[in-house]
Amino acid sequence: MGFWKTWFSTSESVTTSKTTSFEEQTAASVGDSPNSVSEASSKEARIVFSTERDLDLYELEELCDAVGWSRRPLRKVKKAIEHSFLVASMWQVRGNQRRLIGFARATSDHAFNATIWDVVVHPDFQSKGLGKALMKYVLKKLRSEEISNVTLFADPHVVDFYRSMGFMSDPEGIKGMFWYPH
Amino acid sequence: MGFWKTWFSTSESVTTSKTTSFEEQTAASVGDSPNSVSEASSKEARIVFSTERDLDLYELEELCDAVGWSRRPLRKVKKAIEHSFLVASMWQVRGNQRRLIGFARATSDHAFNATIWDVVVHPDFQSKGLGKALMKYVLKKLRSEEISNVTLFADPHVVDFYRSMGFMSDPEGIKGMFWYPH
Repeated sequence: MGFWKTWFSTSESVTTSKTTSFEEQTAASVGDSPNSVSEASSKEARIVFSTERDLDLYELEELCDAVGWSRRPLRKVKKAIEHSFLVASMWQVRGNQRRLIGFARATSDHAFNATIWDVVVHPDFQSKGLGKALMKYVLKKLRSEEISNVTLFADPHVVDFYRSMGFMSDPEGIKGMFWYPH
Repeated sequence: MGFWKTWFSTSESVTTSKTTSFEEQTAASVGDSPNSVSEASSKEARIVFSTERDLDLYELEELCDAVGWSRRPLRKVKKAIEHSFLVASMWQVRGNQRRLIGFARATSDHAFNATIWDVVVHPDFQSKGLGKALMKYVLKKLRSEEISNVTLFADPHVVDFYRSMGFMSDPEGIKGMFWYPH
């Protein structure tokens, strides 16, 4: 099923709950299908979450550019999205227009562990609780797959953000470690 | 191709290099196939590495028991192995007998990141450089797939071991963080 088909068919089905705030909406389960879309709204525009993988890679690159990330070959980004366990996107929808405003993905063994990568919220939409809403959406999806250990590597300036969401750094002295080819 | 077939066909082809130490042997590439087997030897027994996934789960459980890990449902272990990007095992081979003495696996997006999990060496074979040999084998395999960022979460007592292999903890203040369902 293509992105837009999923999008609109699912969006229509939840337009009755337009007054629900996105936090409340994302906490509620909208559907069990991995392609299901959660939705929330304000008076002006709705915020919609999706696990659809059929993203416009140029739009994603634009989002990553906006937060100053180094560009990566789109061929590799495509491969990474294909082989991620979960791909989550956040959209601002006004009428029939939609804008990609957030993204996150997770690798996993589908059984015990998931690791969240590439969490990004467009600067225009930061400090509004949307990063938290996106992460809640990601955690809800991972929990629904019975993943018992969710990990990530946090840059120093977002450690407190993740801590506020219940992530612990170095629990019992466990250290995140990196190795780069040389 | 079944495990034993891979095993013996590959083992035969490298029995000429029996005097090579395992460190030297694992540093050299024996084959490009994901099922290729690297081998090394001492006077008494050979140490063999494999990426074959068709492991006896009870033998793996026995290995994990030996280092005191909590038991996990074999159904989930099976699923995790199936969905890992890399599964590496280390064997002691004497004549036609083989014993599983080490294991490690990695999740990955097949493009940028890999995360190594469940690294274990049987206590009888620790402090002989075999953990290092196993990790070298894992890193060689990941590097051959053009993975540029290899990560892991190290328990406190093995942080120095991984550091000695070139892993860095908290580079530029990046923190490994964990979230558990509640």
